Amino acid sequence: MTLKYANRMKGIRASEIREILKLTQKAEVISFAGGLPAPELFPIDAIKEISREVLEEHGEKALQYATTEGYLPLRKQITERMTKFGINTNADNILITNGSQQGLDFAGKIFLDPDDVVLCENPSYLGAINAFKAYEAKFIEVPTDDEGMIISELEEIVKTTDKIKLIYVVPDFQNPTGRTWSIERRKGLIEIANKYDLIIIEDNPYGELRFEGEIPPSVKSFDVEGRVVFLGTFSKTFCPGFRLAWTCASEEILSKFILVKQSSDLQASTISQMELSKFINKYDLDKHVEKIKSVYRRRRDIMMKTMKEEFPDEVKFTYPEGGLFTWVELPEHINSRDLAIKAIDNNVAFVPGDPFYPNGGKFNNFRLNYSNMNEDRIVEGIKRLAKAIKEML
Amino acid sequence: MTLKYANRMKGIRASEIREILKLTQKAEVISFAGGLPAPELFPIDAIKEISREVLEEHGEKALQYATTEGYLPLRKQITERMTKFGINTNADNILITNGSQQGLDFAGKIFLDPDDVVLCENPSYLGAINAFKAYEAKFIEVPTDDEGMIISELEEIVKTTDKIKLIYVVPDFQNPTGRTWSIERRKGLIEIANKYDLIIIEDNPYGELRFEGEIPPSVKSFDVEGRVVFLGTFSKTFCPGFRLAWTCASEEILSKFILVKQSSDLQASTISQMELSKFINKYDLDKHVEKIKSVYRRRRDIMMKTMKEEFPDEVKFTYPEGGLFTWVELPEHINSRDLAIKAIDNNVAFVPGDPFYPNGGKFNNFRLNYSNMNEDRIVEGIKRLAKAIKEML
Repeated sequence: MTLKYANRMKGIRASEIREILKLTQKAEVISFAGGLPAPELFPIDAIKEISREVLEEHGEKALQYATTEGYLPLRKQITERMTKFGINTNADNILITNGSQQGLDFAGKIFLDPDDVVLCENPSYLGAINAFKAYEAKFIEVPTDDEGMIISELEEIVKTTDKIKLIYVVPDFQNPTGRTWSIERRKGLIEIANKYDLIIIEDNPYGELRFEGEIPPSVKSFDVEGRVVFLGTFSKTFCPGFRLAWTCASEEILSKFILVKQSSDLQASTISQMELSKFINKYDLDKHVEKIKSVYRRRRDIMMKTMKEEFPDEVKFTYPEGGLFTWVELPEHINSRDLAIKAIDNNVAFVPGDPFYPNGGKFNNFRLNYSNMNEDRIVEGIKRLAKAIKEML
Repeated sequence: MTLKYANRMKGIRASEIREILKLTQKAEVISFAGGLPAPELFPIDAIKEISREVLEEHGEKALQYATTEGYLPLRKQITERMTKFGINTNADNILITNGSQQGLDFAGKIFLDPDDVVLCENPSYLGAINAFKAYEAKFIEVPTDDEGMIISELEEIVKTTDKIKLIYVVPDFQNPTGRTWSIERRKGLIEIANKYDLIIIEDNPYGELRFEGEIPPSVKSFDVEGRVVFLGTFSKTFCPGFRLAWTCASEEILSKFILVKQSSDLQASTISQMELSKFINKYDLDKHVEKIKSVYRRRRDIMMKTMKEEFPDEVKFTYPEGGLFTWVELPEHINSRDLAIKAIDNNVAFVPGDPFYPNGGKFNNFRLNYSNMNEDRIVEGIKRLAKAIKEML
């Protein structure tokens, strides 16, 4: 039998992270690999209560088909939460998706023809790279520093490149670097998009998990022309097992997302949406987020402190003000894939950096997650990593 | 602002069914439009119980990220249920999807380049047409009678057509016609696929809902070369609100479905999969299906009886041995869209037939659903429809 797949399948490969996660199932592995929330913080008892209530009050409705757009009360609650990011919108601008990953996939499906160009940070989020590659996009990595994309470099690329369709950014506690864009760069980005008539995909899965300072206004908050598509999620503030996230866009663009949702999987889970909506109504999601933040803040602190103490001076790492990740830079001659193999032999796991570069190339970085391991394991894991690094110097 | 969408967006349009469903939300409308299960049969109390148990026993796991493939115990249970269709497979051949619609979308994404050809029944399922159109496929409708595709006509088309990638069929209680393929035609189909090296997508959402006779062997049961992708779902036997379905394929083909699932939305809901698995373990899903069948059988009977009594002789309709739909043929000069407008004025809804023809053309058919209305409403609704038809003769 000859299997003739579509051309786009050439660009789709297994997520390195999910392959690594399979190796980290063993209890003895100290894993800094996934972007997994701390499961001990999941509001299990509240969800139990709420699940019972939803089934008692609206059982038939909760188990039936529902609209593609999503559960209206939940969409309204989302618009209220979006004010945190300086966004005033309404339920007609919100589509409920199965995780933000689905919003990324839909953005690709709606905008990208083969060989269209996506501009992204350098490095950028692996899941977005994979989603867009599935539509045969090309990537140009815009030079990026601790404040975000360098706007002059961005403009130079925009001026000299054909077929740019999207600019993809994660301005808050970026995955993988943990870096946050300055307000000036956010404004600069939207000015470029306005001037050159481009669409921005602003991916914000971690913005609410800010450990210090104020949440900065989102890129979308500066968008008066409706050219920013904002992706938010409940995976990090509630739980990922529910697979509930949202896309916020102008009605014109959102109508395309709704059409694509219809042909892709009709709708998100009716009962899960109703449960989450009731949770937000009945419990205080903001208070729950505070609890998550206080735990993650301590974990970040202990990881930073231990890295400072244990890592050789040649090793650099970012200081994230929130979110789930820090990004480590090794001396150039050390390949983080070799380190990963050495680390896994010592039961420590992380994600090597090169899959975060869509066009390949950099091998001396890696990503560490601090949300999923307790403080003792963080200290122990970093010590083991430090030892492995020193052996490779 | 200029919005430059991908080419594929030209082929994606709103599902007629979901637009009509919006009109049928009013309580006074007797709706034969959607393919909605009877909500009064949903096992609400059992789900309440099971949800509590899953959260008590595996709360942290149920709310966390999990594998793309799906929950292994559920995948094993599915393989057991597949024996009903004469299919012996194992969990490595099963991917959990968000409804069968997602399996259709993935089939398109994996196999279809622009202008590739999908062969389908005449008429065919609207949701599949929309899913494949999103990948810029072309369709050829294979002449189809009460026993399925006419194999000699199929072979003639296959011999004379380039770029055929998929043959899409719904052999059991087809949507929209309610017709079921004979065993000979199933064998004939697989012979053609083997001879001309083609992939078959066998969509089987209703096969378990057989009111009389034995479940025939599926097309996949005759597949020794691994060229049939089988789509099954719990939307009609359990509930659609959970959005749980599956794709069964050879390991080689399934590996592509898993990759595409990963870049599309990572995974299905962890907690919903665990709940469904526990339901199947603890309650008797087959017994529940018997209950659904006995209710739908009576509804089919009363719809058939009332149509026979009330519809003019010129109107023909299919006799479904199971599933959710019958297909009505009006005299050629009556446009079912005109009838639909007249019907909705009398608070009766159905889906006009033309969207089920991917290349357009036939306007004198329509689809009736009998699973979602009680017997009194079926009688009243058919009487109103009959009156409207008579006025148009």
